Amino acid sequence: MTTTRERLVESARQLIAEQGYGPTTVAQVVKRADAHPGSLYHAFPTKQDLLVAVLENYLTRLRPQIVGPAWQDVDDPIERVFALLGLYRKLLVQSDHLFGCPIGSIALELHDPDPPVRALLVRNFDQWIGAVEECFAAAVDRLPADADPKKLATFVLTTMEGGVMLARSYRSLDAFDAAVASLRDYIARLTTPRTGGTR
Amino acid sequence: MTTTRERLVESARQLIAEQGYGPTTVAQVVKRADAHPGSLYHAFPTKQDLLVAVLENYLTRLRPQIVGPAWQDVDDPIERVFALLGLYRKLLVQSDHLFGCPIGSIALELHDPDPPVRALLVRNFDQWIGAVEECFAAAVDRLPADADPKKLATFVLTTMEGGVMLARSYRSLDAFDAAVASLRDYIARLTTPRTGGTR
Repeated sequence: MTTTRERLVESARQLIAEQGYGPTTVAQVVKRADAHPGSLYHAFPTKQDLLVAVLENYLTRLRPQIVGPAWQDVDDPIERVFALLGLYRKLLVQSDHLFGCPIGSIALELHDPDPPVRALLVRNFDQWIGAVEECFAAAVDRLPADADPKKLATFVLTTMEGGVMLARSYRSLDAFDAAVASLRDYIARLTTPRTGGTR
Repeated sequence: MTTTRERLVESARQLIAEQGYGPTTVAQVVKRADAHPGSLYHAFPTKQDLLVAVLENYLTRLRPQIVGPAWQDVDDPIERVFALLGLYRKLLVQSDHLFGCPIGSIALELHDPDPPVRALLVRNFDQWIGAVEECFAAAVDRLPADADPKKLATFVLTTMEGGVMLARSYRSLDAFDAAVASLRDYIARLTTPRTGGTR
């Protein structure tokens, strides 16, 4: 059983993901959550309080909703990086290229977010980078000695965010696929093969 | 001398870049342009007509405002790619990390733009990719035989867009620099040195 608060946060999360933060109204959130306006104002005195709760909620979703499913059948740490990008590709396909990274979308919609919002955007990006950094750290013996797992993970994130942005604008996977293929080529050039022989 | 129409477009361009499309009101545009409301409604019956004019305007700005200055003192085609990214870095520094790519910001703010808007977002992205593709095409003799200049240029764009997004959220250049350094490492691994010897 979900609480009214949980329903309000989930409704706000969905509406912001679908249409953006600005166009989302408190009235829409109340309606979708099937809640009383009073319950919303009690739990979230301002619309920004609701956004903060949504961004906190995304922190709890990354592992079970995104990283977990992507890595379920993949053991190789380098392949896990591309399985994660593959999951975003699947979300683009499923949404007819309308999918956007919710964190990236909010980050660009709000040109100068208030400190609590910006801090949560950063925590979400940090968490994503941290998950991919784990992969590169686990494959560190296959990377050049001066390779930096966090730096590589940050590059994976810019590739995902830029790729998702272009997929939505082009309504096509071509740009996303071009960026991911280039990233894969880079990582292949960085890593030594697991078995003998050259590529 | 500028026309009223030009002042309206420039005012709208600035306001959208500063605060986003949604929060920009027709009244703000009229005020900043020091124009009569009637002149705006005559030239741009809807707010979206104004956005279309702004996006058309960006098409005319890329070469003189961005690409031209970035490449002014740089002849090497590969270095031109990084000079262009360096210009975005400078814009981030000058704006105290508040700069956003105006096209990327509009692309993520509008979750499902009307066809004329989306078509102009695509034309702006195409133009940017085309400029960088020129660089890789000019350096094709230093790239592997199967390298695709357009694919590489698309990867440069995702790096820029993702890097700018993260710089604004982190209020720091670290993520932008990490992504660009990784891209530089990739391109260095792809290209053969101009003079003899190995890296």
